[in-house]
Amino acid sequence: MNWQARMGELVDLVEGELAIRLPAETVVPEKLHEAMRYSTLGGGKRLRAVLAMSACEGVGGSATDALSYAAAIEMLHSYTLIHDDLPAMDDDDFRRGRPTNHRIYGEAMAVLAGDALLTEAFGTLARLPEYSGLSQALAMRLIVELADACGSRGLIGGQVIDLLSEGRLIDAQTLEYIHKRKTGDLFLAALRGGAQIGNAEPDQLDAVSTYAHNFGLAFQITDDILDVVGDADKLGKSVGMDEIHEKATYPGVYGLERARHMAAECVNVCQQQAVFLGTNAQFLADLAFFVLERDM
Amino acid sequence: MNWQARMGELVDLVEGELAIRLPAETVVPEKLHEAMRYSTLGGGKRLRAVLAMSACEGVGGSATDALSYAAAIEMLHSYTLIHDDLPAMDDDDFRRGRPTNHRIYGEAMAVLAGDALLTEAFGTLARLPEYSGLSQALAMRLIVELADACGSRGLIGGQVIDLLSEGRLIDAQTLEYIHKRKTGDLFLAALRGGAQIGNAEPDQLDAVSTYAHNFGLAFQITDDILDVVGDADKLGKSVGMDEIHEKATYPGVYGLERARHMAAECVNVCQQQAVFLGTNAQFLADLAFFVLERDM
Repeated sequence: MNWQARMGELVDLVEGELAIRLPAETVVPEKLHEAMRYSTLGGGKRLRAVLAMSACEGVGGSATDALSYAAAIEMLHSYTLIHDDLPAMDDDDFRRGRPTNHRIYGEAMAVLAGDALLTEAFGTLARLPEYSGLSQALAMRLIVELADACGSRGLIGGQVIDLLSEGRLIDAQTLEYIHKRKTGDLFLAALRGGAQIGNAEPDQLDAVSTYAHNFGLAFQITDDILDVVGDADKLGKSVGMDEIHEKATYPGVYGLERARHMAAECVNVCQQQAVFLGTNAQFLADLAFFVLERDM
Repeated sequence: MNWQARMGELVDLVEGELAIRLPAETVVPEKLHEAMRYSTLGGGKRLRAVLAMSACEGVGGSATDALSYAAAIEMLHSYTLIHDDLPAMDDDDFRRGRPTNHRIYGEAMAVLAGDALLTEAFGTLARLPEYSGLSQALAMRLIVELADACGSRGLIGGQVIDLLSEGRLIDAQTLEYIHKRKTGDLFLAALRGGAQIGNAEPDQLDAVSTYAHNFGLAFQITDDILDVVGDADKLGKSVGMDEIHEKATYPGVYGLERARHMAAECVNVCQQQAVFLGTNAQFLADLAFFVLERDM
């Protein structure tokens, strides 16, 4: 099977799991559950979920053992998007090609839908022994790792520093902090969690962690490049250093060429880890190339 | 020791535990941690925490065994207050006699501080085996109960129905749903959690659950009465049925006298449960009277 087909398969599994795990729209309060499902089942690449399942497979487990875990990760991701889009935050009207949650359900409901998804994610994690046959010790460790990854010193911390940096010139160190926390930590937790569900040996878990750090960085750099190149395309002009240097992005801090080189280097490291993990990790290797390709 | 002194003791313990469990204001991002601590360490009755510890003691355990659990409950309570006060929600400027979180730190930070407290609460719960020597099985059960109590079919669900009912006449059934979910479920989880940490026997846990249902109801009715009587006091007029019938409150739906009688009846049931639990539960009995007294 080629990797796109495998990707599609895993994405379908995650969609199905989310549709089951999230309360139905017929359950009181209907509007809240509709809002939660609107944003969570509204498409998206499911990259974090797919990474979790692939890491489980990559260390010798079965991808579906990490399915409920992967769904919890997507609930967490979905809550961050809903809250990030709020008028008080990024004030975005569209997400994944559709109106944002607060544009449809209003600001109060969007805050509460995000809160409920965050809470439901932890409820799902605490039920992993029931849903996926995990040991209580492992489920507990996953909750600790995810609470840290998504907490004030993780994802939310990155979002805060990003907010506070708006409109300011930031240095490379701050840029790295923002992205490691804001996107990297959840990638790391997704991959490490999947690997642990697959009963990773310590050296396998190390390889997955290294993969995760580099995958997250490559993802963010490529995202930044796409933003900058996309903006320039829209304006019908070429991208010069001066124009992009004021944004808190990798091309802004390092320049476009060096940023591209950094991303390629990260993907290279991801490949090495996949090679170390062996044939089970072929899909992890493919996924790393997928990130780079988004820029082509 | 009289019950006020005991209350003060437990409140001090909870304050100390929260001060330790919440990241310090010197930890990056400082502003976020300052905002989290501002609202969580900002006083308050600590009723939920005290109930958790008292339930633990009431079934024969030691109150301090439930201390970290009680702190997690207060983090959850604090997050709900911060988000409830947001401009998009109740738009409140003051809370516990001080400016609300978003009035000090801005709306974006208030959303994120709430999110971070919710996340930190689950991180604390997952570390209860480490903090309080709980078994992993028990800690996991507590997380499931709290995720349900605080989720879309619990606390957040009550908040949503309350929001959707604003400005409308609601019936007794809707009123009960709102209050059971919005305040009752967290009281129930606090008390049941404490009792389970104290290794409650099944009949003890039943008694604590009955206590919790009635405590929550008495609390809410008294809260509503205070609102109505307080408003009338402010306006310098007596409270008539017509004036209070349009609010989603117990005096509004049942009238002031009947509401007072209902609250007293609930406290009576709480007393009976405390008597069943025996001498260890004397403080639980005192606490139930405390709720009624607020109305005097």
